[in-house]
Amino acid sequence: MSRRCVSFDEDGHIYEFSPEMDPVYTAADGESLTIETIDSLNKTIQTGDDLLDSIPDEVNAATGPIEVEGAEPGDILAVEIEAVRVTEGQGRVVTTPDFGLLQDDEEIEHPATRITEVDGDTIEFDGHEIPIEPMIGTIGVATAEETITTLTPHDHGGNLDTTDMTGGTTAYFPVFQDGAMLAMGDSKAAMADGEMCGTGAEIGTEIDVTVSVISDPGVGLDRPIVDTGENIKSIASADTMEEAVKLANRDILDLLQADHDMSKTEAYLFSSLVGGLEISQVVDPLVTVRNSIPAEHLSHPF
Amino acid sequence: MSRRCVSFDEDGHIYEFSPEMDPVYTAADGESLTIETIDSLNKTIQTGDDLLDSIPDEVNAATGPIEVEGAEPGDILAVEIEAVRVTEGQGRVVTTPDFGLLQDDEEIEHPATRITEVDGDTIEFDGHEIPIEPMIGTIGVATAEETITTLTPHDHGGNLDTTDMTGGTTAYFPVFQDGAMLAMGDSKAAMADGEMCGTGAEIGTEIDVTVSVISDPGVGLDRPIVDTGENIKSIASADTMEEAVKLANRDILDLLQADHDMSKTEAYLFSSLVGGLEISQVVDPLVTVRNSIPAEHLSHPF
Repeated sequence: MSRRCVSFDEDGHIYEFSPEMDPVYTAADGESLTIETIDSLNKTIQTGDDLLDSIPDEVNAATGPIEVEGAEPGDILAVEIEAVRVTEGQGRVVTTPDFGLLQDDEEIEHPATRITEVDGDTIEFDGHEIPIEPMIGTIGVATAEETITTLTPHDHGGNLDTTDMTGGTTAYFPVFQDGAMLAMGDSKAAMADGEMCGTGAEIGTEIDVTVSVISDPGVGLDRPIVDTGENIKSIASADTMEEAVKLANRDILDLLQADHDMSKTEAYLFSSLVGGLEISQVVDPLVTVRNSIPAEHLSHPF
Repeated sequence: MSRRCVSFDEDGHIYEFSPEMDPVYTAADGESLTIETIDSLNKTIQTGDDLLDSIPDEVNAATGPIEVEGAEPGDILAVEIEAVRVTEGQGRVVTTPDFGLLQDDEEIEHPATRITEVDGDTIEFDGHEIPIEPMIGTIGVATAEETITTLTPHDHGGNLDTTDMTGGTTAYFPVFQDGAMLAMGDSKAAMADGEMCGTGAEIGTEIDVTVSVISDPGVGLDRPIVDTGENIKSIASADTMEEAVKLANRDILDLLQADHDMSKTEAYLFSSLVGGLEISQVVDPLVTVRNSIPAEHLSHPF
């Protein structure tokens, strides 16, 4: 059976995740799809002379939402990311005024743009060849209550800017609304953990996924997690990194306790010995971190 | 020539890094040494019934200080870490009241202790075999001005709790005082990035190092960096993670600009595409983070 392609233009896209969204497509539980996304800056930056004077009102377009049949609040949506392929010949990395980790540094130009041309398996920056490791910046589901712009990450996912959101990873999201309502976009050809200047190499992509509903999970999810094959990682977003690392650590303790005969104290001590805390991004309105546990120490959670 | 062994007991150790310290040994520039360290808790925790009711006044003993001939303020001290070997049959991982990431969680016991027995190349925790990846928790040099307990990390190094401080890494420290005055201890058999509960598997070690002075470096250092062979990483400690990641990012921009014909803006954009931010520890009085750049994009800086 050929995959249904969910298109940015012909099907639709969103700039907000909210509790009530109209699906652009309804997928069967277990269906495989290809999702087309455009670059986060809506194709406005095509040369080094195109500058972003401010963050646009509509940014980080997410293709979707895709309703998944049978998904109900309390379930978990599994998104197996089979592949992320770049679909244009260049990406772009930019600074914008009042945005990014070093936005107050007067020696750094805001705005600034560099085009990163695709050459086979790499992109080029100032003579450096950077391996293309395409990833999905924004991916999430309908929220529990709030309406949240696609620029902001939270418990529903959204602008997680997490390098692990790539081919080979299965991402799990809590389902807050009937049909889950999955949407994604904001891909990068490459991005550093932290995304310090506020962007990676923003680029259009095609994403192959298979979506499945996990009903009555043995352990509930408050926030997204990913299974990269090598590691299972909780992902938490908060106002400060201090708060985000606490959430990410607590979420991993829940998974360790559900999988092993460990007290919370033992899970905490164990979490201080293996894997550890990682940074997704430090620039979006909320910051995002991860707590990783090697797969040999934590069974597939669902 | 056999290596001089610098012993915790017979030579000496410190609980503070300060501007004026008396060396326990004077090493030649380029000399290779073996340094003996005891566990950070001073051998007080030997069974699961030994509990740490509070952080001791004297904790994280660092063997040394070792004067390095010829080192002067403005120089850089290179510490090639050839090997870190555990020297006892067990480590220990503990919680302590008022310490650690989740110290306010009432479901987690404070204090608590688990002994992690060494079995060949692994330590054991609750049936899990954890690979021994020994690392140095506390390593640093005499400070510029302040006296800083060995529990606290800062620009001189100290309690960096950085998993990269292991065999195969060369660490570079700014020299603030004549002779540099290197000291180290607080090794772990294993530790998660973050060191969430406040400790790794604390254990005694022997550390093989070669110490060298880099005079008149082409680029100055404000804080430690490490070269792991695969990556070059800045290491920054601050009151908050938000401040620490800014420092670590700025330090990497300095190295990129010194190595390449890049403006600060270009170095910033580039740093947002490769490597990225990492977490060392979130529990010591200051927190410590890293910014990593793959070695193929940054020449050996000195």
